[in-house]
Amino acid sequence: MADSKKLVKEITSMDEDFAKWYTDVCLKAELIDYASVKGCMIIRPYGYAIWENIQHIMDGMFKETGHENVYMPLFIPESLLQKEKDHVEGFAPEVAWVTHGGDEKLEERLCVRPTSETLFCDHFKNIVHSWRDLPKLYNQWCSVVRWEKTTRPFLRSREFLWQEGHTLHATAEEARSETEQMLNVYARFAEEALAMPVVKGQKTEKERFAGAEATYTIEALMHDGKALQSGTSHYFGDGFSRAFGVQYTDKENKLVYPYQTSWGTTTRLIGAVIMTHGDDNGLVLPPAIAPVQAVIVPIASHKEGVLDKARELRDRLKAVCRIKLDEGEQSPGWKFAEYEMKGVPLRIELGPRDIENNQCVIARRVDGEKITVSLDSIETEIPKLLAEAHNVMYNRALERREKMTYTAKTLDELKEIAETKPGFIKAMWCGDRECEDRLKEVAGVTSRCIPFEQESISDTCVCCGKKADKMLYWGKAY
Amino acid sequence: MADSKKLVKEITSMDEDFAKWYTDVCLKAELIDYASVKGCMIIRPYGYAIWENIQHIMDGMFKETGHENVYMPLFIPESLLQKEKDHVEGFAPEVAWVTHGGDEKLEERLCVRPTSETLFCDHFKNIVHSWRDLPKLYNQWCSVVRWEKTTRPFLRSREFLWQEGHTLHATAEEARSETEQMLNVYARFAEEALAMPVVKGQKTEKERFAGAEATYTIEALMHDGKALQSGTSHYFGDGFSRAFGVQYTDKENKLVYPYQTSWGTTTRLIGAVIMTHGDDNGLVLPPAIAPVQAVIVPIASHKEGVLDKARELRDRLKAVCRIKLDEGEQSPGWKFAEYEMKGVPLRIELGPRDIENNQCVIARRVDGEKITVSLDSIETEIPKLLAEAHNVMYNRALERREKMTYTAKTLDELKEIAETKPGFIKAMWCGDRECEDRLKEVAGVTSRCIPFEQESISDTCVCCGKKADKMLYWGKAY
Repeated sequence: MADSKKLVKEITSMDEDFAKWYTDVCLKAELIDYASVKGCMIIRPYGYAIWENIQHIMDGMFKETGHENVYMPLFIPESLLQKEKDHVEGFAPEVAWVTHGGDEKLEERLCVRPTSETLFCDHFKNIVHSWRDLPKLYNQWCSVVRWEKTTRPFLRSREFLWQEGHTLHATAEEARSETEQMLNVYARFAEEALAMPVVKGQKTEKERFAGAEATYTIEALMHDGKALQSGTSHYFGDGFSRAFGVQYTDKENKLVYPYQTSWGTTTRLIGAVIMTHGDDNGLVLPPAIAPVQAVIVPIASHKEGVLDKARELRDRLKAVCRIKLDEGEQSPGWKFAEYEMKGVPLRIELGPRDIENNQCVIARRVDGEKITVSLDSIETEIPKLLAEAHNVMYNRALERREKMTYTAKTLDELKEIAETKPGFIKAMWCGDRECEDRLKEVAGVTSRCIPFEQESISDTCVCCGKKADKMLYWGKAY
Repeated sequence: MADSKKLVKEITSMDEDFAKWYTDVCLKAELIDYASVKGCMIIRPYGYAIWENIQHIMDGMFKETGHENVYMPLFIPESLLQKEKDHVEGFAPEVAWVTHGGDEKLEERLCVRPTSETLFCDHFKNIVHSWRDLPKLYNQWCSVVRWEKTTRPFLRSREFLWQEGHTLHATAEEARSETEQMLNVYARFAEEALAMPVVKGQKTEKERFAGAEATYTIEALMHDGKALQSGTSHYFGDGFSRAFGVQYTDKENKLVYPYQTSWGTTTRLIGAVIMTHGDDNGLVLPPAIAPVQAVIVPIASHKEGVLDKARELRDRLKAVCRIKLDEGEQSPGWKFAEYEMKGVPLRIELGPRDIENNQCVIARRVDGEKITVSLDSIETEIPKLLAEAHNVMYNRALERREKMTYTAKTLDELKEIAETKPGFIKAMWCGDRECEDRLKEVAGVTSRCIPFEQESISDTCVCCGKKADKMLYWGKAY
């Protein structure tokens, strides 16, 4: 095998085996490689460039809403982790413990951060004294570790990259509105950057973050009908402040506890993109986060003038999009397949005949649609075509989600749908944890969220038949 | 204490106690806070914003030179760390070990990465097969852990943020030239972004990176006359490739080993900036990395029109610099001290009298120089003043370094300089490790580097008197 790049890239089809299709895409699109450490992954340049674009856009949205970035330590002393009872119960079973530094045994074990609420509280205690010190609107980009038993690239790995926002406020009202604001930021990001429609809502008590008073979520529906929790925002009340002794002097000179939030999204979003937009030819990337938005594939590039014209085109397009010209020796057909696999939104074909006619052919990755564009207007056309590609992707995903969203009024209906039709199930719930547990048991579904946009499907709980006024989204989930 | 922000910020003077001055600046300029984990630090928003600016500029330079970012796991299995003998000997004594995941003891201990050569090699082995797969030009932004005994903010902490470049090449020549190129990138960054002159050179064998064939360095001189290694670039030959079994098929269809480099800089650069430019009033930031490049302090802001005019000025200046308007209730004097502490390059004073005269007063942080500027030309003046501030800072640092660089021909001379004059000492060296050890023992100096720009100071080794043709920089170092 003299040239590993010449291998034809074949992947399992979605219908044959969705899970296999997913990992095939992760590997063949060169997003990841497996690492020597079980359950961890290597994010390769193409995958990392997607993450950089996600970071760049999201970080801008955080800064626009007044947040500042900080960096907290990687390690949490065991005694600090234990200060908030619910929190430690939720996380202790799945943390990695550092016990030795060099040859010496540590006096106290350190946990590799699974999330940093405890560290932020410890810091807030040092720096917040007066009402003038509030609010604190912080965010951190880092990696966290959770010792999961079963792992999958991007979706669930022992180490993953994320951002975690942590904010501190003078009033409960302000903290609640921050929690809501950041959920809206996530939803807007999902729609505008990932072309991914999401359902916004609140988690049930069972599904709440360890230590939170309320957890909000954006839920997306993947191609295979499974739900993916894509971002969460938590309201803590003053529980953590009390546990960690964070207090400040208010305007009336009284010592009081501030209110807290946290919110996070992870590299899981890359998994969401793969499973929302991908197809049997590989990845399909939303233009906003695509490392390469348009690729020029010269046709008959040995013919005089073709490469020169292609380079000229590339240089002109640099100002309007992330452009790449592939001058490689492989055939156009090989290149077509390669950039389809990598999900490049637009492919620009340019051959001697096109040059003669002062035009090029542009193929759209999402649906293969081809159009001929004059070279004179290419700088204005490409941004339009990228925006169109985004819209087609969003609408296609929304349409699929709507088609795969069902309504159940009775337990039998819900069971039948859960067994035969992958997707979301909308059904009423009385609010009892027992019904939630039972639906998991008998139908294999979990509550995804209590959506903000409520509909009245019936008056009774889909499970127990008692009076119910909450409509929930249920489903199988990643 | 109703308002913690109203405290006067006093710091120890440099001459009184340089070490105390340094930590005072770190804390009072709100760059860091100490964490519950011994030897780790919290990088606060102002400190992190400096790091973001460093990252942004440096990442651009890496991408311009063809490098791509990736992300490797945080953990290295013990067996993987042990594959390269010199490397593990260098790092094992100072790594943190993870022994448990949740309640279970791990089958194999994992080390929290102190550096990632081993992980990159393991990955290269998977993805490099043919000469067509080379070169690989990778970089990673992440945090690493080294279990240091004594720690200081930014300069030496158990966890720190850094970038580590790792590249793989077909020939030794190409790898050597990459090593050199990246050292030059670092030197250019130090000069252009940090206004910090550096000496470029090679490390002696004693000071080499564990497992490298050659280590290159940029060395800066701090205000107190101590040297600070500010960036290193390593040439590995094919040592790591052999140890990890990384091979590829060359153009002649032979299986051969590729050549490797790595290079890194860390948050230590922030420490370098503090100790190169800072003064008794606090931090002095080079404009390129300053989170706020110019701050508007309104004078008599309660008077009609002052705040309006100040806001108008801020809005105009947004396009040309990172501008801040401080509308806070504190006095102008308090604000002057605050932004001096924080090292903001330019302070713009605007009062009723200035407005009447259509002007403002601009004070330069580096030397306190004040000029009056017409409001009509402020957009063109500010960038010029920032560029000037940079030059003044660079020249001042260079001048100081030159004044603090001495020459020694004999051991007695060197000892006397080392005892009485803080700074660099240029002296000849025969190349023997014994002489290097002896100079450390009798004069407390280490070899900083064999500079690329050689001078002939004498023909004999400063230590043993034998023939010597290498001139070295020696000094006490952080």
